[in-house]
Amino acid sequence: MLDSWASGPTKTAIVDFVERVTTDGPDFVAPEARVAVFDNDGTLWCEKPMYIQLDFLLRRFKEQADADPALRERQPYKAAYTGDLQWLGDTVTKHYQGDDTDLKPLVAAILTAYHEITVDEHASLINAFFADALHPTLGRPYTACGYAPMVQLLRYLEDNGFTTYIVSGGGRDFMRPITGPLYGIPPERVVGSSVGLVYRDGHLYTTSTPEFLDDGPIKPARLWSRIGRRPILAAGNSNGDIEMLQFTEGSSGPSLQLLILHDDADREFDYVAGAEKALELAKTGGWTVASMKNDWTAVFD
Amino acid sequence: MLDSWASGPTKTAIVDFVERVTTDGPDFVAPEARVAVFDNDGTLWCEKPMYIQLDFLLRRFKEQADADPALRERQPYKAAYTGDLQWLGDTVTKHYQGDDTDLKPLVAAILTAYHEITVDEHASLINAFFADALHPTLGRPYTACGYAPMVQLLRYLEDNGFTTYIVSGGGRDFMRPITGPLYGIPPERVVGSSVGLVYRDGHLYTTSTPEFLDDGPIKPARLWSRIGRRPILAAGNSNGDIEMLQFTEGSSGPSLQLLILHDDADREFDYVAGAEKALELAKTGGWTVASMKNDWTAVFD
Repeated sequence: MLDSWASGPTKTAIVDFVERVTTDGPDFVAPEARVAVFDNDGTLWCEKPMYIQLDFLLRRFKEQADADPALRERQPYKAAYTGDLQWLGDTVTKHYQGDDTDLKPLVAAILTAYHEITVDEHASLINAFFADALHPTLGRPYTACGYAPMVQLLRYLEDNGFTTYIVSGGGRDFMRPITGPLYGIPPERVVGSSVGLVYRDGHLYTTSTPEFLDDGPIKPARLWSRIGRRPILAAGNSNGDIEMLQFTEGSSGPSLQLLILHDDADREFDYVAGAEKALELAKTGGWTVASMKNDWTAVFD
Repeated sequence: MLDSWASGPTKTAIVDFVERVTTDGPDFVAPEARVAVFDNDGTLWCEKPMYIQLDFLLRRFKEQADADPALRERQPYKAAYTGDLQWLGDTVTKHYQGDDTDLKPLVAAILTAYHEITVDEHASLINAFFADALHPTLGRPYTACGYAPMVQLLRYLEDNGFTTYIVSGGGRDFMRPITGPLYGIPPERVVGSSVGLVYRDGHLYTTSTPEFLDDGPIKPARLWSRIGRRPILAAGNSNGDIEMLQFTEGSSGPSLQLLILHDDADREFDYVAGAEKALELAKTGGWTVASMKNDWTAVFD
């Protein structure tokens, strides 16, 4: 079942946990309380060299700049139009240094990229994107950028009575059309960031009003809103997953925290930026760290 | 299965619809798209003489007035303390007349009734309330105020591959502890109004910040947030359910809209206040109206 996982302490920790909570005894957990939550970017699929959703948005910015020459002189449209992504990298770097001057026009562009279309139209655009978009460096379709060991883990958990959810900082309505084909997770089990929706004449329309940025301490609140239960297993890969991982520790019974370590430059990417604090907490908190390089016999299908 | 439903056009409309969408043919709907949404107050359980949640809150206001004499002179604490509920009725009447002067202190009291407690503590208080609270006029426990025909309908739909959800103006975290025992609907399938939650040190705390009032046009947006699919069946009983019922009509295939008519003074209550527009739309839109008096052979178990 978990044959993309190498034998070793990580695989053992997962299997032991699942056996304990499914076996009669002090650690048994009723099936309805076997809730497992998974971050998406960097946990279930690639997030480098940039978030897949950002690629989707950049194509939209380029479309907008194609249609309106005035936009070509303004960021982030200029970056999308010229294909010079340095500005984006700098913007993120400055954000981590506490300077959001350039982040503001980027966020504004993201929020207005698809406002005032129906949720059905939005889903069609996402399906069209995934129909042929390729990962820029791995050369494989984005739809093949899910991690095989993690998909196996989802199925293994479900086979053991767990209900699995995605709880991601990515856009809820961006992920939902694709999580079924990619991970076997239906839209109703996907929690993510969102803009407000308005109902009008039988349709739901996107707005440009930010609703939730489902990251950091917002993750436990959003998953609670969705599930109404405290998960007993959480998987993540970055500092934005810390609170979700910690929330599972408050379970009255056993719990498992799984952190994916990107240390495989040959098969995927090698980076810890944005995960430093999570990796530190993993050490002190007894979280299970999965090394892509050592714990996964395959990364992709 | 539906033996609390009398033979007749209403029961036939329900059974015909379910048979059409589950039988191979032009109206067949895949199981994962068989989504059915139910209002709660007045649709699954009694909402007269007042919302059950309001009874819960009044007991809290009385506790607060017991502890703080200054509150006894202020509404809504005064009403709760003296047991004189005329003020509440007047407040609702004035609200419908466009005067919310008295509604504001009521809403403020509701929002602050349980702020800064953990969601687990909140659930314990709700369980304690339902352990012995009785309906004020029907003389039965609130936990026995669910409508037997509707619970049968939930099971009938689930047996036919539907996934059922509650989408209510009532408090999400108020309903969740009780919807399992009452209706067999687990917390993860309950959508409702909410206050913001904040995460701190492993716990989620309630705040007094309103988040969503899940009523009217907000219902389609909230159910989309939760489910990411357009339901093909909706059941409601009031004007606040109109948009949710209409949203199901936009389904590409068949859909069913069910409106519960409270016309049974002997066994429950007889009223149309707050449902006038919905009943009007039912006539013109071909919605199915279930008369409690004529279509239900039993109201409660």
